[in-house]
Amino acid sequence: MATLSNSTNIFWQECQIGKPERQKLLNQKGCVVWITGLSGSGKSTLACSLSRELHSRGKLSYVLDGDNLRHGLNKDLGFKPEDRTENIRRTGEVAKLFADAGLICVASLISPYRKDREICRAMLPDENFIEVFMNMPLELCEARDPKGLYKLARAGKIKGFTGIDDPYEPPLNCEIEIKQEGGVCPTPPMMAGQIVSYLEEKGFLQY
Amino acid sequence: MATLSNSTNIFWQECQIGKPERQKLLNQKGCVVWITGLSGSGKSTLACSLSRELHSRGKLSYVLDGDNLRHGLNKDLGFKPEDRTENIRRTGEVAKLFADAGLICVASLISPYRKDREICRAMLPDENFIEVFMNMPLELCEARDPKGLYKLARAGKIKGFTGIDDPYEPPLNCEIEIKQEGGVCPTPPMMAGQIVSYLEEKGFLQY
Repeated sequence: MATLSNSTNIFWQECQIGKPERQKLLNQKGCVVWITGLSGSGKSTLACSLSRELHSRGKLSYVLDGDNLRHGLNKDLGFKPEDRTENIRRTGEVAKLFADAGLICVASLISPYRKDREICRAMLPDENFIEVFMNMPLELCEARDPKGLYKLARAGKIKGFTGIDDPYEPPLNCEIEIKQEGGVCPTPPMMAGQIVSYLEEKGFLQY
Repeated sequence: MATLSNSTNIFWQECQIGKPERQKLLNQKGCVVWITGLSGSGKSTLACSLSRELHSRGKLSYVLDGDNLRHGLNKDLGFKPEDRTENIRRTGEVAKLFADAGLICVASLISPYRKDREICRAMLPDENFIEVFMNMPLELCEARDPKGLYKLARAGKIKGFTGIDDPYEPPLNCEIEIKQEGGVCPTPPMMAGQIVSYLEEKGFLQY
């Protein structure tokens, strides 16, 4: 039942109802869909659209939104580099738990640094971490500016804003890239469809 | 879609697929079953038994085990009082997310301080936090000593061990109390049955 950890007095508890049993109950496979991209690139909109599409197929998903987590689990964290890293590490750990619970966990965070995203990827078997890059031009995101944050950043009222005075490191080997085609942005249902097709093809939508 | 937070530049994202839709899909209601008690009182065994019983009824649950979380989400935390409090706060926040996802989340932690448990209770609507007190005598837990920790604590090799040189504050108003009857300990399936009956009666096992 329990094995001694190599660190302190912590044991690992095994339970007879595990990930396979939960996946079978849900008729799906647990995984993490990690949406990364600039502020205003449409991550949250895509996450919502994806959860709707999955729900319409009877699949259970849960969205972890970077902003929302900062009201709860991560409310002790600010925006210093080490806090941003910890913010993403904790989100990755929670996403891993949701995938273990059998859910399709949709994480939606700017997560600008490659290193931080790689840490989250390394928490899971590689095929269970599906990185989705919202590859939208900065100009488009800034023109949208749904939260008015680019304006504040340009006015110097926010420091260290991704894309303005802090870098965004695009993924090198993401599973899915969402981008404009001929200068036209796909609609949210089209983007969600792209991800659902991937999940279907890889067998995540059945046990 | 988004409202400005009263703190910093954080928005709350609403999603059309919410807790009711997920609960309907699962035909159950999300909640947190919080099992508290001394080391060796049988919390993990009960959590396993409960998840088996719920699974046999087609209900989706997920166990958050205090020890297991210390390998991942809470691996940056030690056993100082403020670290213990943060350990429980984060577990409560994650349990809240699982309940929001529609799952019956079973948290199994010594959680010795009333104040820490109350903080977790306050995160949820009161009826969705079901506190289960494993009311087993210290002598029994120490005689069991499944991890050999009481022995180490008595030998002074572990400091601040709950029940030995750190207090356990029993719940004052828990929803469920598990205890010996006539000096006999109920079996894990009997304990799990006691919780399942409560969940059934309160309507958590259907939508």
